[in-house]
Amino acid sequence: MIRINYDRLRKAQQLMKENGMVGIMIMNHDDYRYFFGDVRVQPRAIIPAEGEPVFIIMSSEEEEMRSQLPDAQIKVSSHVGEQMANVRKTFLSLYENPPGGIIPPPDGKLHVGMQMWFHTPAFLVDMFRKTNSQAVLVPSDPVMDKLRMVKDPGEIEIMRKAQSIAASGMLKAKEMLRPGIKGHEIATEVIYTMMKNGAEGTSTPIHINIGLQSNWVHGKVSKDPVKEGHMVVIDLTPQFEGYCANLARTYVVGTPNDMQQKLMDTYKEIHEVTRKSIRPGITVYELDQIGKEICTRSGLEQYHLKGISHGIGLRFEENPASTIIPAHSKTKLDENMTVTIGHTILAVPGVGGVRFEDVCRVTKNGGEILYSFPL
Amino acid sequence: MIRINYDRLRKAQQLMKENGMVGIMIMNHDDYRYFFGDVRVQPRAIIPAEGEPVFIIMSSEEEEMRSQLPDAQIKVSSHVGEQMANVRKTFLSLYENPPGGIIPPPDGKLHVGMQMWFHTPAFLVDMFRKTNSQAVLVPSDPVMDKLRMVKDPGEIEIMRKAQSIAASGMLKAKEMLRPGIKGHEIATEVIYTMMKNGAEGTSTPIHINIGLQSNWVHGKVSKDPVKEGHMVVIDLTPQFEGYCANLARTYVVGTPNDMQQKLMDTYKEIHEVTRKSIRPGITVYELDQIGKEICTRSGLEQYHLKGISHGIGLRFEENPASTIIPAHSKTKLDENMTVTIGHTILAVPGVGGVRFEDVCRVTKNGGEILYSFPL
Repeated sequence: MIRINYDRLRKAQQLMKENGMVGIMIMNHDDYRYFFGDVRVQPRAIIPAEGEPVFIIMSSEEEEMRSQLPDAQIKVSSHVGEQMANVRKTFLSLYENPPGGIIPPPDGKLHVGMQMWFHTPAFLVDMFRKTNSQAVLVPSDPVMDKLRMVKDPGEIEIMRKAQSIAASGMLKAKEMLRPGIKGHEIATEVIYTMMKNGAEGTSTPIHINIGLQSNWVHGKVSKDPVKEGHMVVIDLTPQFEGYCANLARTYVVGTPNDMQQKLMDTYKEIHEVTRKSIRPGITVYELDQIGKEICTRSGLEQYHLKGISHGIGLRFEENPASTIIPAHSKTKLDENMTVTIGHTILAVPGVGGVRFEDVCRVTKNGGEILYSFPL
Repeated sequence: MIRINYDRLRKAQQLMKENGMVGIMIMNHDDYRYFFGDVRVQPRAIIPAEGEPVFIIMSSEEEEMRSQLPDAQIKVSSHVGEQMANVRKTFLSLYENPPGGIIPPPDGKLHVGMQMWFHTPAFLVDMFRKTNSQAVLVPSDPVMDKLRMVKDPGEIEIMRKAQSIAASGMLKAKEMLRPGIKGHEIATEVIYTMMKNGAEGTSTPIHINIGLQSNWVHGKVSKDPVKEGHMVVIDLTPQFEGYCANLARTYVVGTPNDMQQKLMDTYKEIHEVTRKSIRPGITVYELDQIGKEICTRSGLEQYHLKGISHGIGLRFEENPASTIIPAHSKTKLDENMTVTIGHTILAVPGVGGVRFEDVCRVTKNGGEILYSFPL
């Protein structure tokens, strides 16, 4: 069901004006879902700094969209060239008659905002720039981050459900772990379990990082089978109603050796102390300092990596995403933001890597884990 | 297992020189897999126009990578800033001492190539441009398309296997279709079946487009359940060893009405005649003309949409991808290219949409369907 969320739309328009934007071009699932509650393979809409959104659709979507939004501004195209022309015309008229009240940015030029994250392909942006040569394109983050970072109670409940789906997958993975099993066998059953429990899919490929590959900052489904003594990092990212979960656990197959146990214990301490330190005003930079101190006390300082936490919501990494955008390490957390705790890896060559990651709601008294799963 | 495919590398380097590039920055799974046969979440490598590739990795990957490629040029970073600096230094030295034999492009400037398709996020490209201000960034397509469009026999066999996995999913979907079932239930079992049969995952979300949404050019998993008389378009895209399958079928739940039958019959005719017309030298533009004529003869001309075929391989759409890059409609097919037949939708408002899509190898005598599944 597509419907326009006018509350969010009006707030976005106010922020556009404050940030010197004539409008935002939406080409992303997450922003589209945020404003319109709907999924389509090519989400395309223009939100001007004033007035109604303009939906850019292909002719085959027209019947279905008009049946749901009979009064909406809809521009229909039958091929990609026409689609680009519809976008161009809309922005040209916004530049010719900009909505009142826009505060010009420091460069004196009116901007067009667009999300530039993982799901905005570079060629689309280059194509937009070529077709809309009058437009000064900037990231829409100053508008969208401000709107989306703090979650409302409805969003928190959806995210709690998403985490519970991840937990069902983790339980399945944990049950299956034994010497000889392959990552792909685990991944197959885990994804099936999560989809049975309502996951739409996953926001990133899931990670079953086995043995040496448990050291990786990121992951994949390892090819080689599990062996006795392996560390296995499992990182699950199901989506529910568009919202992303993130749950990671590390298991040792068999009895951990002393160094493996030390890594696990140290990470659990970092996880707990950091989570309790979460509060409005704190930054990921400061949270990372806590982890660094704990590593130093454990003699593991040289293995400490920054990035203990990142924002999460309709996008799998949102501001603060300090391992992607270093400046985000200075973003101050706020109440009811949702962030992960346990994102970075603590890895020692020859031993393995550890990560325990949960999603928390920021409260005045620490991070509240949305759905509890044993560490 | 990571290994450098020197045959592909040397061919790429020759093409780089012919296209005025000092090197290519690889940040994509598909190119990375093509040259190195490996998957990692952050695939990062620089291929200079001469000499050895440079792998840009995070410190936690070092042990594993050096164990496989002890003599490779590896630049290790412990955070994203350092990673960017490693890339910058490599390209600076390539600009200061460009490999001999590079033919300068028309603008007289030496270029850096990069893939700009769906999996290259816009912000990464902007970040690259800022950090490498000396570099003139251009799409790497003139090099990579030329290399990758024509498949070798090993690639064809992998793609045949990928199509057989898609067929296993389609069979499952077909068995499940009945009034009352939801798209998500079908999707869950279909993905499970395909993963059980070896799929690594899917290259795009799969589509179970039900009822009105069967009209869509693209798709999603429809929310509303199947009803008697609905058309259902199922489009499956499993990946096997990185290679993408694409299989679409349309079913009517119950007995098709006359118009539905006419759409199905017309599409099957387009599919068959177009597939038989495939040969070296033909273009998607010309293939589309065939479809248009058949639609006209059936009185469906107004519903004809272009884009009957697209290239496919390690990327789910490769050159020719004419519905994304209109200029690709003029790309001449060549022997042993792999293209789909049946990409566009034939949809009539109030009736539904139809698509039957298969992957074919281009031969001198038509398109050879890689894995046969009943139309």
